[in-house]
Amino acid sequence: MSWLTATYAIESEPERIGERAQALALEQSIECPLEAVGDRRILDEIVARVGSIAQVAERRFLVEVHIAAETIGANPAQFINMVFGNCSLWEDVQLVDLDLPAQVLETFPGPRHGMAGIRSLLLAPARPLTSTAIKPQGLPVSELVRICSTFALAGVDIVKDDHGIADQAYSPFAERVPVCQAAVAEARSITGKNVLYAPNLIGTPRVLREHARIAREAGVRAVLVAPMVVGLPAFCDLVDEFPEFVYLAHPSFAGSARIAAPLLFGRLFRLFGADAVIFVNYGGRFSYAPQVCAALAQALRAPWKHVRAVCPVPAGGMLLERVPELLDFYGPDTMLLIGGNLLIARDRLLERTREFVQAVHEHEFSAPASGPGFLDLLAQVP
Amino acid sequence: MSWLTATYAIESEPERIGERAQALALEQSIECPLEAVGDRRILDEIVARVGSIAQVAERRFLVEVHIAAETIGANPAQFINMVFGNCSLWEDVQLVDLDLPAQVLETFPGPRHGMAGIRSLLLAPARPLTSTAIKPQGLPVSELVRICSTFALAGVDIVKDDHGIADQAYSPFAERVPVCQAAVAEARSITGKNVLYAPNLIGTPRVLREHARIAREAGVRAVLVAPMVVGLPAFCDLVDEFPEFVYLAHPSFAGSARIAAPLLFGRLFRLFGADAVIFVNYGGRFSYAPQVCAALAQALRAPWKHVRAVCPVPAGGMLLERVPELLDFYGPDTMLLIGGNLLIARDRLLERTREFVQAVHEHEFSAPASGPGFLDLLAQVP
Repeated sequence: MSWLTATYAIESEPERIGERAQALALEQSIECPLEAVGDRRILDEIVARVGSIAQVAERRFLVEVHIAAETIGANPAQFINMVFGNCSLWEDVQLVDLDLPAQVLETFPGPRHGMAGIRSLLLAPARPLTSTAIKPQGLPVSELVRICSTFALAGVDIVKDDHGIADQAYSPFAERVPVCQAAVAEARSITGKNVLYAPNLIGTPRVLREHARIAREAGVRAVLVAPMVVGLPAFCDLVDEFPEFVYLAHPSFAGSARIAAPLLFGRLFRLFGADAVIFVNYGGRFSYAPQVCAALAQALRAPWKHVRAVCPVPAGGMLLERVPELLDFYGPDTMLLIGGNLLIARDRLLERTREFVQAVHEHEFSAPASGPGFLDLLAQVP
Repeated sequence: MSWLTATYAIESEPERIGERAQALALEQSIECPLEAVGDRRILDEIVARVGSIAQVAERRFLVEVHIAAETIGANPAQFINMVFGNCSLWEDVQLVDLDLPAQVLETFPGPRHGMAGIRSLLLAPARPLTSTAIKPQGLPVSELVRICSTFALAGVDIVKDDHGIADQAYSPFAERVPVCQAAVAEARSITGKNVLYAPNLIGTPRVLREHARIAREAGVRAVLVAPMVVGLPAFCDLVDEFPEFVYLAHPSFAGSARIAAPLLFGRLFRLFGADAVIFVNYGGRFSYAPQVCAALAQALRAPWKHVRAVCPVPAGGMLLERVPELLDFYGPDTMLLIGGNLLIARDRLLERTREFVQAVHEHEFSAPASGPGFLDLLAQVP
């Protein structure tokens, strides 16, 4: 018998935490009162068990719950269901960590390429990487291609669609993707520098598959997917059916207040097959604290059995001027994603994008990054 | 040109709300600074617009944002992306309402059966309905069938799998579902009363399809699906490919703090094809207020163009003793779901389940329900 350990942060009065923890364990296993269970095996092998309970603030506790691996099987949807199904409906409960036994971990192949695979495709073995986004949506295909081509000519490593670019009438997927891919191929033949175009796959599972086929036929090697928008299980199917793609995971719809960001983006997206994970950087348009970002990046890169290390991609209101600060913060195994702050250059887009690429390529790291551990960082998260 | 209106609750200092609203509108449309946009058409037809801003508490505002229908197309995933994509990452933003123009609404067929279809299948034109859950998971198939059969013999309308019962080694789907379906068919031939067995479909899209086929071949007419676990777009595909099933939507993984529960469960699950929606009842194991439950039930049943009315299914720690109170609260167009509180009877399961069925069938409504409107109720939600 094998158990996974899920750690939940629970807001509770101290005198009620034992009862709350026990209720959570029942909710995430048999979902009925213990008195309804007559079967010894269920009590011994199926009912989840409360492990340690640690008080971390006046009304905040970290509660470990051991959940039977047998209740999951090799089913990513059931995995979600068992670790954060009904208990996600308690507004004062947050899922903050998971410790998975071999029996569960082995059912996930993890990323097919990871950081090393991306570096290999880009022929960039050690330096930090660059990425940008084609936007805004609403532009006709001819304009999107022009922007894509400019970014590629400027030497960006991965040029991705904005995550709002889907299959709209003004820029249909089947029309847009082959010409953008052709544009980066042409740029590559001019500059001699490898570059990947990553179109946005978004839709129901049938649309995802259809679009993935179109992309593959066009020679595309990387794609953008928002796992929470398409659904984590659909993302798993996609990675499994199209393992040749490098997957950039986008955080859209992942409002992660209920699952700690370092866990959701840093470990679950990785486990489910993302090769690079886009997340909102500190000090940008969003509200993550630096220690959350550091914990998240560390979770993506930490050794984890057979699960390949993944490339962190901080994004969201990033400024060209912050490149040195951000590279020192995240270290070289990072891809910086700057979109809007390049596009404001308009007619000088090529020049400004070149400045971005140059700033990243020429950055000199003061010292190798060596921050605090994942749980130390998590403990600092408000 | 056509626009949908999304209403967000934003926690903000009063002096910053205008700027926050504008940032949200950009985030949910072009996702880049306005100064990066040179194209007049984008500014006029694609950039989302802030509508009314209403202060509802000291630091809480309701902000209407008009989003161009054209940015969505007929794509449920892109629909999610555009109404609550990146802005879900702001922890102080909640999506609370949606007003959809015909152009968007027409792309969703909605429930294929709805309340009326369920009543017709059950030959129960007017009375409130009953439902229960086979549990706990971990039991062998022989035991699950025994419980299923007992519930059906007692006269329950819909006997569903517990949402934790997936395809585990101890009760494989392909083995379990045909025999449970046969058990309810046999019970029906004994009692003369219609009854539906609803197995739990959970997995990646490929598993969902495979299991749906097995269920259909076994003669199953209703299924349980947790749309947030499998992913809303995968749920759409499933309903589209297997329209013959009555879909009971389960709230697992839907931790709805970031999307108002009445909107997510009451309108989005309905829009995406659920025929009956399970949600956590007030005063049970979860924390919803009565006015949230009332707003949710009302949203499921309110007239909405071509989108059929759907059956509310309050659940979660429901007690047999509360049946009269709950029926008076929810009215006759409701299905009560009681699981654990029946199973505690153990050897008296048949008798206790009969008491439940009898209490529901014989309930006399004091007066027709006529509560406050949806937005009135929402306004009361803390």
